[in-house]
Amino acid sequence: MKHLVSMNDLSTAEMMEILELAESFANDEQWSPGKKTYAANLFFEPSTRTKVSFEMAERKLGLDVIPFETSTSSLLKGETLYDTVKTLEAIGVDIAVIRHEEEAYYKELLNQVNIRIINGGDGCGQHPTQSLLDLYTIKQEFGTFAGLKVAIVGDLCHSRVAKSNKEALTAFGAEVIFSGPQEWYAGDAEQSENYYEMDDIVNKADVVMLLRIQHERHLNMTTITTNQYHRQYGLTVEREKRMKERSIIMHPAPVNRNVEIADSLVECERSRIFKQMANGVFIRMAVLKKLLDQ
Amino acid sequence: MKHLVSMNDLSTAEMMEILELAESFANDEQWSPGKKTYAANLFFEPSTRTKVSFEMAERKLGLDVIPFETSTSSLLKGETLYDTVKTLEAIGVDIAVIRHEEEAYYKELLNQVNIRIINGGDGCGQHPTQSLLDLYTIKQEFGTFAGLKVAIVGDLCHSRVAKSNKEALTAFGAEVIFSGPQEWYAGDAEQSENYYEMDDIVNKADVVMLLRIQHERHLNMTTITTNQYHRQYGLTVEREKRMKERSIIMHPAPVNRNVEIADSLVECERSRIFKQMANGVFIRMAVLKKLLDQ
Amino acid sequence: MKHLVSMNDLSTAEMMEILELAESFANDEQWSPGKKTYAANLFFEPSTRTKVSFEMAERKLGLDVIPFETSTSSLLKGETLYDTVKTLEAIGVDIAVIRHEEEAYYKELLNQVNIRIINGGDGCGQHPTQSLLDLYTIKQEFGTFAGLKVAIVGDLCHSRVAKSNKEALTAFGAEVIFSGPQEWYAGDAEQSENYYEMDDIVNKADVVMLLRIQHERHLNMTTITTNQYHRQYGLTVEREKRMKERSIIMHPAPVNRNVEIADSLVECERSRIFKQMANGVFIRMAVLKKLLDQ
Repeated sequence: MKHLVSMNDLSTAEMMEILELAESFANDEQWSPGKKTYAANLFFEPSTRTKVSFEMAERKLGLDVIPFETSTSSLLKGETLYDTVKTLEAIGVDIAVIRHEEEAYYKELLNQVNIRIINGGDGCGQHPTQSLLDLYTIKQEFGTFAGLKVAIVGDLCHSRVAKSNKEALTAFGAEVIFSGPQEWYAGDAEQSENYYEMDDIVNKADVVMLLRIQHERHLNMTTITTNQYHRQYGLTVEREKRMKERSIIMHPAPVNRNVEIADSLVECERSRIFKQMANGVFIRMAVLKKLLDQ
Repeated sequence: MKHLVSMNDLSTAEMMEILELAESFANDEQWSPGKKTYAANLFFEPSTRTKVSFEMAERKLGLDVIPFETSTSSLLKGETLYDTVKTLEAIGVDIAVIRHEEEAYYKELLNQVNIRIINGGDGCGQHPTQSLLDLYTIKQEFGTFAGLKVAIVGDLCHSRVAKSNKEALTAFGAEVIFSGPQEWYAGDAEQSENYYEMDDIVNKADVVMLLRIQHERHLNMTTITTNQYHRQYGLTVEREKRMKERSIIMHPAPVNRNVEIADSLVECERSRIFKQMANGVFIRMAVLKKLLDQ
Repeated sequence: MKHLVSMNDLSTAEMMEILELAESFANDEQWSPGKKTYAANLFFEPSTRTKVSFEMAERKLGLDVIPFETSTSSLLKGETLYDTVKTLEAIGVDIAVIRHEEEAYYKELLNQVNIRIINGGDGCGQHPTQSLLDLYTIKQEFGTFAGLKVAIVGDLCHSRVAKSNKEALTAFGAEVIFSGPQEWYAGDAEQSENYYEMDDIVNKADVVMLLRIQHERHLNMTTITTNQYHRQYGLTVEREKRMKERSIIMHPAPVNRNVEIADSLVECERSRIFKQMANGVFIRMAVLKKLLDQ
């Protein structure tokens, strides 16, 4: 494996291997590449979690990180992403993490560059390390996926992880159900079939995986207020009380407090929201190792 | 001590301890935390000195610094400072240095986060490491504070250090006097009592501590030009000639040349302005050590 | 040598010494300063190549790099470049790489600061490490400069390297000829004398060194379209076919594809464009060593 740009790049066996590698890093396993290795993080969209998480993972593996600020680069002079990445390669960067607003931006790169590429999110496309850390958080909690009922709730059509999470979870033997505003389903038959009202989901699901309302992508959400959203589709204080014993709450963050989830639940006992962030570092260490250790 | 957000957090004994620790770092003492330690510097207001100084101090102590750019973070997506800091904590950052335009921004953080916090300046509030480096520069010069006369001159009401410097200096046995535009005193009785004309201060003071006119905070300073300010309240070439033997000039910088101080005096023999910056690194090393070495 | 701000600072012997030092770094020679050394890169104009290249070179030499973002520094509060550089010096930075839009910005610094300065480009002035990497790339290819014919083509009057490259190449025994829009020659007699049409150059030159059209500096290029430019002065697919055996193509990048050079030629066999970038790292390592190893 040279690049990781989509969950479709990974077999279920490879996914499982990454989850196990992440587990070993969580258990303080040490690994570094045998030689000086240089990473660069190119984030063309705002990010706290993903960028900081990669920066941390890279340092924990002893990589040297070459700073790259998209806002002051020669992209301002009209240089293309392809030429920018080729430049980094020529200068000696070994691995680049890229987040870009354009869906599948990486297509023009994959067979053209030797530098390794990890997709840190492309438009409404993919975000494989987020999917992997979601899977890892569930596996860490329940030990297995088989027989679990996972509810994915919210902005399914703009989510970079909903679709790949559903596919992976199903492949691993979990059942995936959905809730959220039906007009956001983009006519997906399978999702419609497994659609439930939020009130009917909370007492069924082992995992309630809330998706972020992507205000920045979802410009025409004028028919519903954030209050209405919370009442109809949000995880309210009342709904949380009806959740199954040992069931957990997930959210990729940043959370819109009191919209997708009640403010007081963000750090409640069931919440794995900050645990997901901690797990993200181990997942990224695992992916970096997998790409570099060949 | 878990956080340092205000000089009020410190007893005079603790202040003295930090000054002595800084002195030992100035004398090339080496110290590093026993384990990999990660710092992040969150500067929501422009800064050269304070940010670079912390970056240097962190590297001199062998910390790993995780870059965090406020301008490209998820704060742009509406994430709160609290959620941002919690995220850094979840990802494994041990200590955060924060400068923020909101006074007392740290109140919502202190009892909620395990990450250590150093306040690098909050609005018109506090800037404890600046206060400490001012104290250290005076102590380095005179060996003691007892019996010294320290004149604080200028924009007292917007200064993040004037008040805490006055309190600390007084506690250590120095006498503090004031000058500058009286309308900026915000009706502080004690300051009014110890108020002198600039011409009467320069031949009395052992330390002339000039404050920066904070143009960016002081929007309505329309009644006085910078030339007038220099003539009435500035350290002019003429006034410097009447300063006491062995007395020194201080300024937190950036200096408005020919406003608070004549251009030619910025690097004169009495000036400790660049010495203060050098000392800032040692003070920050001392504070970092104090928070991490427990 | 304390600073490198212009090719005029260097004798031909010193240039040759730097090229040889770069060669040894290309051959994996290791060198680090004997003590902890701190670098800062101050880029006031957009840059990918030069900034990333210095960041890489600094890390390969084991320097500690102190991040400095021009967009969030106290320059926003009106602090001058001089005071900014003096501040970095006071805080302990040993060497600063500066790119600035103002021609000869460094004049006010040279005799006033102890920090070492490398000019990473000043307005339309100089860019010595780019010149040196151009020379190194030619020397690497041909072993010598004597007897070579080097064609410099394009935006000569805005180029930071054309003039110094011409002088150095001539001093080393190469013949330099020119092409490009004649109105851009700024009335330089010598260049006019050695001017040729592009069609007459391609079968003569050992090196075709294309210059970038600096759209950002060249605001009034309204009389000619980019298509016309390509046809008249560009390296077209057709012209490349008539190039001499073993001759090479150079360009400082970022390339305007299909303007200065046909898209398909950017990575053709003759092209040394990405090789130049790789060489840039070794040149910068050599210059850093020369300034630090004294």
